[in-house]
Amino acid sequence: MGVVVQKYGGSSVGTVEKIKQVAKTIISRKDQGDSVVVVVSAMGDTTDDLIGLAKQITNSPDKRELDVLLSTGEMISCSLLAMAIKDLGYDAISYTAYQIGIKTIGPYGKSLIDNIDGEKLRESLIEGKIVIVAGFQGINEEGDITTLGRGGSDTSAVAIALRLGGICEIYTDVDGIYSVDPRQYKAAKRLSEIDYEEMLELSSLGAQVMHSRSVELGQKYRIPIYVGLSNSSIGTVIREVTKMNMESKPVTGIATSDDDVAINIQNIPNDINLISNIFEKIASKRINVDMISQTTPINNMINISFTIPKVDLKECIDLLLEFADKDKISLDEDITKFSIVGIGMKSTSGVAGSMFKIFAESNIQIKMITTSEIRITCAIRREDKLKAVEAIAKKFNL
Amino acid sequence: MGVVVQKYGGSSVGTVEKIKQVAKTIISRKDQGDSVVVVVSAMGDTTDDLIGLAKQITNSPDKRELDVLLSTGEMISCSLLAMAIKDLGYDAISYTAYQIGIKTIGPYGKSLIDNIDGEKLRESLIEGKIVIVAGFQGINEEGDITTLGRGGSDTSAVAIALRLGGICEIYTDVDGIYSVDPRQYKAAKRLSEIDYEEMLELSSLGAQVMHSRSVELGQKYRIPIYVGLSNSSIGTVIREVTKMNMESKPVTGIATSDDDVAINIQNIPNDINLISNIFEKIASKRINVDMISQTTPINNMINISFTIPKVDLKECIDLLLEFADKDKISLDEDITKFSIVGIGMKSTSGVAGSMFKIFAESNIQIKMITTSEIRITCAIRREDKLKAVEAIAKKFNL
Repeated sequence: MGVVVQKYGGSSVGTVEKIKQVAKTIISRKDQGDSVVVVVSAMGDTTDDLIGLAKQITNSPDKRELDVLLSTGEMISCSLLAMAIKDLGYDAISYTAYQIGIKTIGPYGKSLIDNIDGEKLRESLIEGKIVIVAGFQGINEEGDITTLGRGGSDTSAVAIALRLGGICEIYTDVDGIYSVDPRQYKAAKRLSEIDYEEMLELSSLGAQVMHSRSVELGQKYRIPIYVGLSNSSIGTVIREVTKMNMESKPVTGIATSDDDVAINIQNIPNDINLISNIFEKIASKRINVDMISQTTPINNMINISFTIPKVDLKECIDLLLEFADKDKISLDEDITKFSIVGIGMKSTSGVAGSMFKIFAESNIQIKMITTSEIRITCAIRREDKLKAVEAIAKKFNL
Repeated sequence: MGVVVQKYGGSSVGTVEKIKQVAKTIISRKDQGDSVVVVVSAMGDTTDDLIGLAKQITNSPDKRELDVLLSTGEMISCSLLAMAIKDLGYDAISYTAYQIGIKTIGPYGKSLIDNIDGEKLRESLIEGKIVIVAGFQGINEEGDITTLGRGGSDTSAVAIALRLGGICEIYTDVDGIYSVDPRQYKAAKRLSEIDYEEMLELSSLGAQVMHSRSVELGQKYRIPIYVGLSNSSIGTVIREVTKMNMESKPVTGIATSDDDVAINIQNIPNDINLISNIFEKIASKRINVDMISQTTPINNMINISFTIPKVDLKECIDLLLEFADKDKISLDEDITKFSIVGIGMKSTSGVAGSMFKIFAESNIQIKMITTSEIRITCAIRREDKLKAVEAIAKKFNL
């Protein structure tokens, strides 16, 4: 049998009416003869509302308990969707993470799917049922409920597609992946396909269409992921883009993010053990450090700067105080991370040069810079963001 | 160690502020040196709100899925309560039904607790944690989530107390069990103790203080159940009332219920097989038939009347149509079930006679009647309810 795993995001199931609409869409797919597994996110703003509730109890809710709380959002949407499908005369069954053995590892709030016991899923599909799975959640070794981080339902879907040998379709409120956020650049073009690696760079850089881990899984196991609107055949396929079908242009997309903050530590010893100690400690808390730059040593003392997600700021500062005095640590919150991404960069030289030239012409100051084989990221002033997007998008015809 | 299992109802945890208050009450108990397990209901009207959401999807939501949906209410309250306790510096952990193996049997929506795997509970208590358990829910043999029926958290609490060899305290928004609903009779007296059997009769008859199954469990295993306000030592203990401590009066309490409907089937064959068939069929759907009366056969045809809960009306009528034509089935929705209960009736004669006399003096018509060793129930006109309550309460000094 052909198995299709569809994921519907929170806005697709944001109201009872939308849930009923999604139920019809799913049924029409089932009628085409496919075995259908559906992963749902929580309805609309449910997750934010639940976080708000927890914050009314305490400013720093216990992470284990927060995951219990948040997991209810997907249980609500998946039970309602199963009801809606059954009401239309089709057999459906909802499953929570523990019921189908979605095993996770790693910390609460950002755990990773380690394994899925596909047995119950398969049985239900063989019985002809449409299976609805609560996304975003799993069970760790201790039997605790954990969540996968914002957007984690994408990863639930890809992992299930992998387990069942099925194809994966992510339905969202946009009709695919764009080279540039259309809210920032109206002429932005939709991509018909994008390579896993490009997508990974874009999602990790603030193009919040997909949960990064889902793309990693897709890449690792070569599962094509379709992203688009439901009820429409227009969308983007995330897959391995070979030279054969790769367009010749070096830059595929732009991503910007205002969600980071730069931390500067002044005047600390230029001691490789100390520095690596600091970054290991930060990494042990699963805080993603992105750009790092350091100054030339003076009297064997250096200044070091790096960016982290704003949400992790408090935790990170607490860590740093073990290594440096408070008055040596300063913040730059007025940054935007601006990135260009393209696997074409591997074979095209001079992309960075073109970018710097355009920035210079537009009087855009670069605060920090970091590159990978297929990406260049600069920290720029937030006020320069739209100017940078427009200039680069035009230059590279995005 | 002394284990105390406390249950807090929906109104006790109806708001974030109330949850914080309950957290303090629990901690003060913990500080007395007890091992504390807390069972919580869903916050305020959450269960009704979730049912409302399901009804927006369909008028007859799938029962399995409805139980998934409803089980989230208790997950929310128990995770928030655990957060609140942790925020006050005490160690706490929440558990869902599947995490501590609350195994159920029977249909969705009104399943029975069959067993509890106490291991994880005991471990957490030994670690000094305050354990918060999501009430009202369990897991059946198939691994599906089931719920225990309205008020089922009481039963969760008693079952856990049984498993752990602890005492059981049910905290609610009333300060105990009253002989008569104080809203119906202002002079009603609070009982300091009541026998399991009396309580069972009262709760099954509409005095909605306790989930019947919880009292049954308490009775079967001789677990005293304290019912009262939190932060107060005034309350009622449900336990075995021996002759020694039994008060001499024959009637302990009055219960009334407007939640039933009388069904009349006219002119069906006086065939014992047919009749028992009908009631077996009704019982197989777990619909509780209460009063039954039938007329003397005429040409070997009889009329039969019985009462059932209003909520089961549609399901019951659907069943009856297999046995009788639609035009032979009629309803009487204008009934109140009026019951007097007391284990003293066992040893006191003439209680029924007194009751009939008072009803006759007050011009209250009795439509149906049924009795047990410790109870007399009459179906009366709803408009006569308060008149009956007042007359009987005065007569028996309730």
